[in-house]
This record gives sequence, C-alpha cells and structure tokens, in this order.
Amino acid sequence: MVQATALPRNDSGIETAIAILKQQFGDRLQTGAAIRQQHGHTTTWIANQPPDAVVFARDTQEVSDIVRTCAAHKVPVIPFGTGTSLEGHVNAPAGGICVDLMQMDKVLAVHAGDLDCVVQPGVTREALNTHLRDQGLFFPIDPGANASLGGMASTRASGTNAVRYGTMKDNVVALEAVLPDGSVIRTAQRAKKSSAGYDLTRLLVGAEGTLGLITELTLRLQGIPEAMSSARCSFPSVDAACQAVMTTIQYGIPVARMELLDALSVQAVNAHAGLGLPETPLLLLEFHGSEAGVAEQSATFGEIAADCGGSGFDWTTNPEDRTRLWKARHEFYWAALHMRPGATGFATDVCVPISRLAEAVARSNEMVAELGLTGMIVGHVGDGNFHTTLLVDMEDADELARAEQFVGRLNDVAISMEGTCTGEHGIGQGKRPYLVRELGPALGAMRAIKAALDPLGIMNPGKIL
Amino acid sequence: MVQATALPRNDSGIETAIAILKQQFGDRLQTGAAIRQQHGHTTTWIANQPPDAVVFARDTQEVSDIVRTCAAHKVPVIPFGTGTSLEGHVNAPAGGICVDLMQMDKVLAVHAGDLDCVVQPGVTREALNTHLRDQGLFFPIDPGANASLGGMASTRASGTNAVRYGTMKDNVVALEAVLPDGSVIRTAQRAKKSSAGYDLTRLLVGAEGTLGLITELTLRLQGIPEAMSSARCSFPSVDAACQAVMTTIQYGIPVARMELLDALSVQAVNAHAGLGLPETPLLLLEFHGSEAGVAEQSATFGEIAADCGGSGFDWTTNPEDRTRLWKARHEFYWAALHMRPGATGFATDVCVPISRLAEAVARSNEMVAELGLTGMIVGHVGDGNFHTTLLVDMEDADELARAEQFVGRLNDVAISMEGTCTGEHGIGQGKRPYLVRELGPALGAMRAIKAALDPLGIMNPGKIL
Repeated sequence: MVQATALPRNDSGIETAIAILKQQFGDRLQTGAAIRQQHGHTTTWIANQPPDAVVFARDTQEVSDIVRTCAAHKVPVIPFGTGTSLEGHVNAPAGGICVDLMQMDKVLAVHAGDLDCVVQPGVTREALNTHLRDQGLFFPIDPGANASLGGMASTRASGTNAVRYGTMKDNVVALEAVLPDGSVIRTAQRAKKSSAGYDLTRLLVGAEGTLGLITELTLRLQGIPEAMSSARCSFPSVDAACQAVMTTIQYGIPVARMELLDALSVQAVNAHAGLGLPETPLLLLEFHGSEAGVAEQSATFGEIAADCGGSGFDWTTNPEDRTRLWKARHEFYWAALHMRPGATGFATDVCVPISRLAEAVARSNEMVAELGLTGMIVGHVGDGNFHTTLLVDMEDADELARAEQFVGRLNDVAISMEGTCTGEHGIGQGKRPYLVRELGPALGAMRAIKAALDPLGIMNPGKIL
Repeated sequence: MVQATALPRNDSGIETAIAILKQQFGDRLQTGAAIRQQHGHTTTWIANQPPDAVVFARDTQEVSDIVRTCAAHKVPVIPFGTGTSLEGHVNAPAGGICVDLMQMDKVLAVHAGDLDCVVQPGVTREALNTHLRDQGLFFPIDPGANASLGGMASTRASGTNAVRYGTMKDNVVALEAVLPDGSVIRTAQRAKKSSAGYDLTRLLVGAEGTLGLITELTLRLQGIPEAMSSARCSFPSVDAACQAVMTTIQYGIPVARMELLDALSVQAVNAHAGLGLPETPLLLLEFHGSEAGVAEQSATFGEIAADCGGSGFDWTTNPEDRTRLWKARHEFYWAALHMRPGATGFATDVCVPISRLAEAVARSNEMVAELGLTGMIVGHVGDGNFHTTLLVDMEDADELARAEQFVGRLNDVAISMEGTCTGEHGIGQGKRPYLVRELGPALGAMRAIKAALDPLGIMNPGKIL
C-alpha cells in the first residue's frame, strides 16, 4: 500500500468531541480498531487511515448534531456509505469522526407520475431498484459496485449506463445537506428544471463530502424500457473496437451501455465466470427502447461492427443471458485480481473526447509495455472513459514506482488530449496533483468556495484540494 | 414600468474607470444616452437602469482588462448579450460598465466526431445552428428569442426542446470565464464527463453574471434527427390538455417539444399569424427520431390525446408546415402584446412537478379572474413549466398593484407545490424576494460563495442575491 500524507491532528479536540458524542449516541459511537479500520477502507492501493471514531447516524438532525459538535471542537468529519470509492475518499488523514450513513436507508417517497423519488443517502442503488421494480421504474446510474446513493452523488459517479442516461450530475434533482456549520439546507425544489439561483445541487454533487454531508436526495427516475437487448462483438484489435465505438456514437445510436474489455480482461472474466468468450478485444452493449427500436439499433450496430472487422456479433433479449454477461462485466475487478494472486489493483479512470479514444487506449498499452507492467483495460467507452487496471506487487518497490509513473503518465496523456484524469471516480487523495495539472487556475476558485463554506476545514480534509 | 431599487453609486470610481478604459478602447467605449439606454433594456416591466458606459469587447484578454480596471476602482461590471432576458438582468442599479460581448461572435471549433463545439459568448443560437447545419448537427436549446449563448448559459435558459434535451446546465461541457479579479479560468476539459473537483461549470451556468463573465463555451451538440414531425391537438379545456401532457410524460414518450397555448393565446396567435386554429386550448408537439419512431410516437400521443378529449389531432413532417406552427409559437409574446395595445407584458415563469401541472394552471386562471386581470398561458408543459403573461396598463396604479399581487401569489402557489418561481428566466432583480421564499436557508451558502468569489461585489450587482 501507498501511504497518503498524514495531516496535523487536533488530539484534544477529537477527544472532547468523542466524549460529547458518546453521551448522545451511546453504542452507536464505536472506537474499536476493527470498525475504524473498516471505515477507512478504500478499494484501492492507498493505505488505510482510520478515523478516531465511527458514529452511526439515523436522521438529519443527528448528522447536524455531529457536525455542530465537530465544528465546535475543530474536528474532521468524514462521511461514509459503502466504502467502495477508489481514491481514498473515506480516509482520515487528520483523524476525526466518521459519520456512517448506512442506517439512513429509507426510500422516503416515489412520485411515479413525476418520474422522481426521494431517498436517504444510505439507500444503495440495488435497494432502490428493487423498491422501484413493481412500479415499472428504475434509477439508471450503475457504477458496478452496489454503492450508496449519497456516496454516488458525492463522487459524481456514473458507470455503464451513463452513455445514455448521464451521470449523477444529470440525475439528482435536489439535495438536502448538512453544511459545515451544522445548518441544514435544501438545494432546490422538486420541479424538473429551475433557474433559481446558484446551482448548489451540482456544487455538492462531486464535492466528495468536502462542502457538506448529503442527508437526502431527490432523484430522477426512468420508466423500465419496453425492450432491452444485449449484444457482444469481438474485434481483432482494441483499435478496431474503438473505431466501432466512435462510429456508433457519431451515428447517434442511443446505445444504453457500451463497454470495452481488452483481450486480457476477457481472459480474466472467462477464468472467473466461465463464459468461454473468444479471448480478443470485446464490446458489450445494451440497447433500450421499443421492440422495434431495439432491433433497429442492434442491427445498425451490427453493420458498423462488421465494417470495423468485428466478428461473433450476437444479440439477445433473453434476461438470463443478459444478466450473465453484465454480471461478468461487473465482477471484472475481482476477476482481474485473480489473474495475479497477491497483487493489488491500481485503478485508473481517464476520460477523453471520443475522437481521441483509440489513440488514448493505444498510448496506455504502449506505456504498460514500456514500463514492464501488467495492465488490463475495461471501459465505458461510449463516453470516452476507460480504466487501465494495473496488477502490482506492492512488495516490489521498483514495480510500485513504475506503476505510479504509469498512472501519472496516463493522466497527463488524457489531459493533453483535452480529457480528464477522472471520468467518474473522483479526485480523493490520489488524484490531487493531477487536478492541479488539469484545471490549474480554476483551483483558486475551488479553494475560495471551500474556505467560504468550510472556514474551519473540517469537512473530509485532504480530499480534492 | 416598475422601478427596481437603485443601489449606492461609486461616482468617482466610475469616472476614473471610464477614463482609463476610454484610453484602451477608444470608440469601442460609448457613453451616449441612447446606447446606454439600449443596454439597460429588459423585455419586461422593470424600468430601465442604464449603465454609465458600454464597452464592446473583442476577446477574453479585453474582458479581463475591463474587469481588472473595474475591480481596481470598485466599479460594477454588467455583461450584455442580446438583452432578451426578462428579469432586469442587464440593469445597472449601481451604475457601472456594461460589457457588450456581441462582437465575440466566433464559432471557434466544431468537433463533429465528439458532438461538441467551442463558441464565443456572442454567438446566437440561430447563428450557431446555421453554422452547424451542413454537418448534420444542431444545438437543441431554444428559448424562443435568438439569444446569445453566453446569455443563455448565464440564465440557465431552456425553452421548447428542454423536455427532450435538457437545459443549458445539461448542454454546457465547459466554460472559460473571467473571474471578478480579472483572472481567467477554464472550468473543465472537453471530455464528455468528469469527476474532477467542484463543478464550476454548473456554478457559472445560471449565475447571471454575478460570479464572473463567460468568455467561451464548449457545448454538446446533437445529430439532426432522421425524421421530425410536428403535431397539434385541440382540447375542450386546459385541464384536459394538461391531463394529456401528464400521461404522455408518464408513458415515457420521448417527445421533443410539448407546448400548451390556452384559448386566449391561440386567439392572439391566430390574429398575429393568421393560422386559423380552433380557439380552444391547444397542444403543439414535436417528435424526433427515425421515420418509424416518429410515426410510432405520433400515433401513441394521438391515442392519449383522444382519451383526454382532444380533437383535431393532426401531424406532419412537412418542413414548411412545421416552421409555420413553431414560428407562431415563438412569436407568441409579440402576438400577445397586440391583444391589448399599449399594455405591458408581465411574464411569469413557474415550474411545478408534472403531477401538479393541471392544478397549478387552474389556480393561475382562478387568480387572474379573481384579480380582474387579462392573462394568457403558454408553456413548456412537458417540463411542468408555464408562463402566465399578464397584459397590464402600467398607467393604472390599481391594475399594476393587482398584477404584482398576482405574480407573488402565483409564485407562492408554485413553491407550495414543491415547484419553483423560475423554470428558465432566472431571478434577476424581479424574483429576489421569491428566491428567499423558495430556498430560504440555502441563500446563506449562495451569499458565502458570492462573497468568496466577488468580495468587492462588482459583478452584476443587485441580481439574484
């Protein structure tokens, strides 16, 4: 593991805050090592920095109480959902109080006629979709992990469906949040659109808990499509697959998912899930629409794929076949780790304009080879977003150094192509240097906003800025 | 006209700034009364508050120079595009320098493969669409007026196509802006999605020039659909039309436009454009898609409309017929003014959850009747957004008072239905009291952000907050 920088601690403040909160929360405040470790956990190569205590909050008022106590004693507050973030977002580099929001897990309202719902932050995307199914509705954002919706908003998550339905920024109508002084705000009403003042909704989406804690979300929903089909197609090269992706997007086919797996990723998935797919670059797609629309989209894509050298094109509306394919995709990360037992996954997350996709993927492959690393590519390529996952032996200092070099070089390549170092994972601790390279002068405005809303700097310190 | 509150002036600072800028800009700085009046013009009932000078900027560096000079002398800076905003956005209640951005009118790049383009803020939406047509692309946001894209971003504009394509918040990828200290930032790269730090793009979209001046926009584009059809259908009552709207949205029909005109609005449009439409409530719709998709959508809507008592349903893909219908809709505001010569239009802009639409429209009609006013309703009802336009004799103090009462009551009705006082026009000067009623505690966070980014308070003072 790589140690993130520790920040100065306010030991006496932390001790006082824990004593006060213990009075209020009793057994719902925990200081045991195991539980603290678990709440500093990140699904990545950044070492654990546990908080000093974990409080399990049950409602907005309790969250406000915690934040007020922490503000009074200048103690860091770190929000926690499912701990599936990838850039050290839940680490506590200055110690402090972790607020576990998973007991705030109620779907408060479903307005089927308005295609929206109101949920607490600890509702996971799978729990919400289970709740909605009977009403013919679904929430489209799917980052793979069964993350909490509060966490997904905080990292501006997206995933496989974003090419059609957008990211969390496009699917959050309004938020309730506890600000760093403990006050509670609502960022918007429930109207589908509004020009009422500054867009605080979008400011909190992607703020990674550094400006406040999300305590309620109003989300846009979609009707479950009449028909869904999944398709897969193998390609002789990653470049050929990327050409098919670019053409599909440029044709305006409203594809719902379009995922790339390179040959090594297909191998991993085959080994993990016994799929028996040809071990060459693969595109997995999904189409949503009417029966006729889905058939039309699948056929058009089939033609594009064939023009790009694709083979083994196959599509199905059979739910079991669809589920099997997408489950394999979702379990890729664990499948990948099995390819090199004991290795740690380094997840990267660049996103480039779609016209640069093939070139960016090629550069990634070249750099993996140049640096003598093991890397696999999967990606939400319909958005120009791909993840090169390195499998790194963390005991090998030289390999680790090369892995870190790769991450930096890949981020720089993406930035030089007018892309971003993070399409959906966020900045957290890991990407702070790259945010500076990517947006330079804009960081001043971000710092000014942070200082204005959180003058004590207690909200999830050491992240983003 | 109703006079907006004047704010304290810094006369010596303004005089000094004008003298300095005159050196740099020569004839491109104007202080004549006519030009100043024109740049304080608002298409509404709020009286003109002209700036002290108008500077015609040609590039970002010049905008930065102007802002630096104004900051050095604590002089207000008011950005100006086409002056088609509706809530006093371009008024200068504390005097100051108006920056006319209409000479920054270049389309800098069209990335057809990436479905995006880069434009200067003075490019209008019609100019952009003319530029794009040959490439089979279009920019979907259409607020009616041929507004500048910088202005449209600043008010978070939307209009007739928003039900399908979203608002400016959904269609701006990145911005270049001059901040209140004169520094220049880019808010994002050109990737389709990003989780890189605070969403400054969305913070500036809808900030009405109070946080900075937009000097460049990267916009999402759409492929021109294979087929477009327009439909119209008359209804026995506004309520019946609203029921059809709600059902259409709830069915998930991807309608591209869905506009309501009440009987009086149809009368106005008939008189203005000689359309000969039945003078009962009318829905105008547009469908985008493949030939088959458009036919399917039109047919499904036809069935819904018939179930709701609609009659005279008719649809066409003939471009001239489509243009004629939509031109009439776009010219509604001028048609309305002709219904009562000499009267001034009071445009309202509430937006409610779609399930409350029929009820909100009914309340509006009741209140117009109760207050003895002349009011007409048109609206982007697919989003729950409608405009009750009052025709008011401004010389009649009693009528004016009743009109102001109506506006307040309608806004309160919308807010009580979890809606907003402004779906797309913005807050400007006119809606500031209602923003407080709508978002209350969130105003503190907005004020903190304003103070952090614009500590001198020089950016478009007297707007939003």
